[in-house]
Amino acid sequence: MIIVMSNSATREQIDNVEKKLSDLGFRTHPIFGEIKTVIGAIGDKRLLNTHFISTMPGVEAIVPIMKPYKLASRELKQVSSIIDVGGVRIGGSEIAVMAGPCAIENKETFIETAIKVRDAGARILRGGAYKPRTSPYAFQGLEEEGLKIMAEARNVTGMKLVTEVVDTRDVELVASYTDIVQIGARNMQNFRLLKEVGMSKKPVLLKRGLAATIEEWLMAAEYVMAEGNLNIILCERGIRTYETATRNTIDMSAIPVIKEVSHLPIIVDPSHATGSWKYVNALSKGAVATGADGLLIEVHSDPCTALCDGQQSLRPPKFAQLMQELKPVAEAVGRTLK
Amino acid sequence: MIIVMSNSATREQIDNVEKKLSDLGFRTHPIFGEIKTVIGAIGDKRLLNTHFISTMPGVEAIVPIMKPYKLASRELKQVSSIIDVGGVRIGGSEIAVMAGPCAIENKETFIETAIKVRDAGARILRGGAYKPRTSPYAFQGLEEEGLKIMAEARNVTGMKLVTEVVDTRDVELVASYTDIVQIGARNMQNFRLLKEVGMSKKPVLLKRGLAATIEEWLMAAEYVMAEGNLNIILCERGIRTYETATRNTIDMSAIPVIKEVSHLPIIVDPSHATGSWKYVNALSKGAVATGADGLLIEVHSDPCTALCDGQQSLRPPKFAQLMQELKPVAEAVGRTLK
Amino acid sequence: MIIVMSNSATREQIDNVEKKLSDLGFRTHPIFGEIKTVIGAIGDKRLLNTHFISTMPGVEAIVPIMKPYKLASRELKQVSSIIDVGGVRIGGSEIAVMAGPCAIENKETFIETAIKVRDAGARILRGGAYKPRTSPYAFQGLEEEGLKIMAEARNVTGMKLVTEVVDTRDVELVASYTDIVQIGARNMQNFRLLKEVGMSKKPVLLKRGLAATIEEWLMAAEYVMAEGNLNIILCERGIRTYETATRNTIDMSAIPVIKEVSHLPIIVDPSHATGSWKYVNALSKGAVATGADGLLIEVHSDPCTALCDGQQSLRPPKFAQLMQELKPVAEAVGRTLK
Amino acid sequence: MIIVMSNSATREQIDNVEKKLSDLGFRTHPIFGEIKTVIGAIGDKRLLNTHFISTMPGVEAIVPIMKPYKLASRELKQVSSIIDVGGVRIGGSEIAVMAGPCAIENKETFIETAIKVRDAGARILRGGAYKPRTSPYAFQGLEEEGLKIMAEARNVTGMKLVTEVVDTRDVELVASYTDIVQIGARNMQNFRLLKEVGMSKKPVLLKRGLAATIEEWLMAAEYVMAEGNLNIILCERGIRTYETATRNTIDMSAIPVIKEVSHLPIIVDPSHATGSWKYVNALSKGAVATGADGLLIEVHSDPCTALCDGQQSLRPPKFAQLMQELKPVAEAVGRTLK
Repeated sequence: MIIVMSNSATREQIDNVEKKLSDLGFRTHPIFGEIKTVIGAIGDKRLLNTHFISTMPGVEAIVPIMKPYKLASRELKQVSSIIDVGGVRIGGSEIAVMAGPCAIENKETFIETAIKVRDAGARILRGGAYKPRTSPYAFQGLEEEGLKIMAEARNVTGMKLVTEVVDTRDVELVASYTDIVQIGARNMQNFRLLKEVGMSKKPVLLKRGLAATIEEWLMAAEYVMAEGNLNIILCERGIRTYETATRNTIDMSAIPVIKEVSHLPIIVDPSHATGSWKYVNALSKGAVATGADGLLIEVHSDPCTALCDGQQSLRPPKFAQLMQELKPVAEAVGRTLK
Repeated sequence: MIIVMSNSATREQIDNVEKKLSDLGFRTHPIFGEIKTVIGAIGDKRLLNTHFISTMPGVEAIVPIMKPYKLASRELKQVSSIIDVGGVRIGGSEIAVMAGPCAIENKETFIETAIKVRDAGARILRGGAYKPRTSPYAFQGLEEEGLKIMAEARNVTGMKLVTEVVDTRDVELVASYTDIVQIGARNMQNFRLLKEVGMSKKPVLLKRGLAATIEEWLMAAEYVMAEGNLNIILCERGIRTYETATRNTIDMSAIPVIKEVSHLPIIVDPSHATGSWKYVNALSKGAVATGADGLLIEVHSDPCTALCDGQQSLRPPKFAQLMQELKPVAEAVGRTLK
Repeated sequence: MIIVMSNSATREQIDNVEKKLSDLGFRTHPIFGEIKTVIGAIGDKRLLNTHFISTMPGVEAIVPIMKPYKLASRELKQVSSIIDVGGVRIGGSEIAVMAGPCAIENKETFIETAIKVRDAGARILRGGAYKPRTSPYAFQGLEEEGLKIMAEARNVTGMKLVTEVVDTRDVELVASYTDIVQIGARNMQNFRLLKEVGMSKKPVLLKRGLAATIEEWLMAAEYVMAEGNLNIILCERGIRTYETATRNTIDMSAIPVIKEVSHLPIIVDPSHATGSWKYVNALSKGAVATGADGLLIEVHSDPCTALCDGQQSLRPPKFAQLMQELKPVAEAVGRTLK
Repeated sequence: MIIVMSNSATREQIDNVEKKLSDLGFRTHPIFGEIKTVIGAIGDKRLLNTHFISTMPGVEAIVPIMKPYKLASRELKQVSSIIDVGGVRIGGSEIAVMAGPCAIENKETFIETAIKVRDAGARILRGGAYKPRTSPYAFQGLEEEGLKIMAEARNVTGMKLVTEVVDTRDVELVASYTDIVQIGARNMQNFRLLKEVGMSKKPVLLKRGLAATIEEWLMAAEYVMAEGNLNIILCERGIRTYETATRNTIDMSAIPVIKEVSHLPIIVDPSHATGSWKYVNALSKGAVATGADGLLIEVHSDPCTALCDGQQSLRPPKFAQLMQELKPVAEAVGRTLK
């Protein structure tokens, strides 16, 4: 890291900072400019608590040089990770499509939708048994009953399952039913929940927080990985901006940025990112062409009766059409789609 | 709510929407303009799941008219709430100051700091026993050991305690030690945690989420209140914006907005909002003059050795000076400070 | 528009608002709910100054129903506009690629780059003769000398030209040299400049403002169109968000949103949006797959000596490779690329 | 500045960067860490075009150490500037209040409002003769006719005038009438306009751009100052964020930040920042207590008939009441109010 001293820093203050750094095990290299002095400090700040340097007299700012994440970084592991979910590989040449309704409402509708999305080409079935809803008066999910319906849909369709967990107390239960445990955007910095899924070993779909930076997102992945679970799939789902034409603003540039700095696969959720089914087709193609490893798409047999997020759900025929249109796009960028 | 039909909506589509609304118990009032038709729908959308109306053919948009929160709204309760924390009243004419270090590091330092902030006029002692840290490699708090130190500091100083809880499994334990349970910014939409503290009856300090709207913040309060716990103190702690000169951007206008739409008291945390002790003095005075009911301020005896957030902590003498300077500001706006 | 009355509005206040609206030529339709009254007002608010209604006693909010833009809206013109720039058509089935250096630095380099981008398939040559730079101490462009170099490059290559104008006093001069006049992000709400280019009849490339909503962007187009110049090409160039991994955040969802609400073509500038040449390839493909009508890409023969924005410029060989890779993507979504 | 080399940078790449820097007149100090090498470069980057260093092979990032503004910085001038506007001093111990209607609509109303705000204690009269309006169909101002009315109001009241200029072609004319030339938020990066007012020598009220960082704002001041006009008054008017409860989000922390890094005075415009007269009282007091040097407040005799921004205008009696309430707040922080 680099310590920038203020213009008025005295020689004594500079010496004190150097001494403190040295005590902490850093090697220091002061550079005396005409106006300012900066001190280069070599050592691993990840293991140290160095912020307090910034409170020492004469210090203007600290500039970190090393990235704060390690296990998630491409510097550590240069080969892209492929997450194997019972034979469905995420991060390889095949585009992985996860589809299904936002919430599980009843068995018939859910299984009916599952069959349709599988027939259209989705390999992983999504569905929410525990729903984090903004309003306490909104439908909160069927809980374990929902998990059972999902398990039955897996039996019927042969698909893999992904579903969200929202409470540390439920991790074991949810993990016992699902193939991928989802951490939702609102829980991206629920560090206890991250640790808990880190201990479960199930693949984790880690959604980006509503206003999380890419660095914070990778630090959340690092929490999971630090517990020993390296099977992380990142999911871009739109960030909060001033624009109101869409519910969130999909950050498509996160795809090449993640590919540069991390080895983890990244998929995109255009349904939550935009909040409107009308934009899902265009942005799904855009995400794949930009380099996403997969998609998470809401599909509902009858969006008009959905208990949750109907306005962003595709009907099965529109989803099937999208899958047809996606195939040439995937091939145009050297990927495949079943 | 108002349903806005698209310009090309057919009469049949309009009739279908009206019928659906009517089936759901709404009274409808269509208004036929020259270009557009809008339908006024009277009824309580809070108890209904009406979003799917937006997916019906011909519907362009839904405009909610009623606010989604109820128990937190000033419409329901016109008199401002005063939260009584063992005799310290928050929301009344006296400005409530909560102060102390970010994390509890050891007993001696903590109690020493506690005595100093009490002597300077703070009535409530803050301290973190469970720390939600961005990095898994950073100090995570002393946990129950920290709670015990806080309890001892209460005995010594006679102050009330506020500390954060980060896991549903710890709510009972934390509540057994503290006087106010804090929900941190990163957990503002951890709905399970909100419900759990809603059942505990202890006063709750509810920090605004990093990128939460005022409406979402009040909906988080509603979650707690819906479980029967009405003792909520809101805490503005800065929101995420593009500006990097401060760590977050303090949203001072949230104070008059909250005062208009809610009866709950609101305090301000200038330490986290700015990330720098240099700005705490100015913004503390600004917050009180704007109408805040209190302040949450980080104070540390030796910020240079703090294990957490040292750069935003005031030293006790600067805190004592701030308290002196705050008094005339409080009085200038008709408030008092002990 | 809809006027929402506050819960405590009196009957007299409601009557006053209705009377005022009626005086202004609106037809009114009050809807009396159990808690609130709302008033539907039919008439063209675009020609009226109705905001003051919001200051009348008892009024809580005004909800506009009609979009504020008219000439730019798809409601007015349902067929997508194709802008003809001397035979190069923007908005049709062919993807239009504009490429070249950020600033014109000298004739030789510029013409050399022009030939290379033309050979790679670009039909329109970009170059800055007037540069809006954040610092007064940075290179500000060659001004008319730069325009002359551009004109010569047009003679040599047969390409069309696009260049920015930054001052009302220069519009006539710039328009006399270029084929497309660019309005930069920082001038998107320089309304006098918009009016001036509106009077010039040259096609206008209208970049989205740094933090402009899609609605404000279309209102800027409306300014130009209201002067009689309907030849607008919109250009998404990234918006300002809290994320710092890229210089701006490319708003890819603006593409389908614009396609839905407006008939104007939209192109994407991945170079300015990301600030890094490393991300241009991925996002160019993503933009085309999402439905963009074209791209604006910075190319520089020797980015290391560029006087402006070198870090976001592709070298000609990388640009040629991108053009090759773009072709199958364009075809996958039913478009062509020369 | 600091050049951060990538982990995989070769010795040759490091040498090349050092050589390039050396050729440009920088002294270089490489620091070889275990994983990374960084190069400290001493010299004035303000006068050089160093961004291209970032495109050299092996370079990961450039970290600027020096601030890009110079004339506006407190490093250059440690004493706070006081701008003298014909005897009204801005930036001294007295709080300067500028008040008046958004737009000048007719002589009688304007002069009537002027007299009332003067009697309440405002020393400077605001009014818009040229209005930058989002819609081309909205009232655009009375232009020179409006300036004449302002001049007459000055004669009647003895106040000083502040009014906006929106076009380089009008600077001379506007400056000939007014005492302070205002640059509006939308023109904060209209660099030609900044240069033009820089040449006029009239005091300049420089509003912060809608989404401008504090650094960009000071760079805009630098543009004006670089032309020789050092009489800049900064005006915080709210920034664009995701929050919609207020029109913009007032960035109160900009006050202490500006006071730290610049010698220029800063005032606050709570009317535009919030978009609602209801919040003006609270935030005016908050701004003064935080350390603002003055306020810019919209006052209109009859907001219900205002042609512009009526909803954010205070009526004269509410403004007079605010001035009364402000006095003790100003005194509480050691300032005065006439």
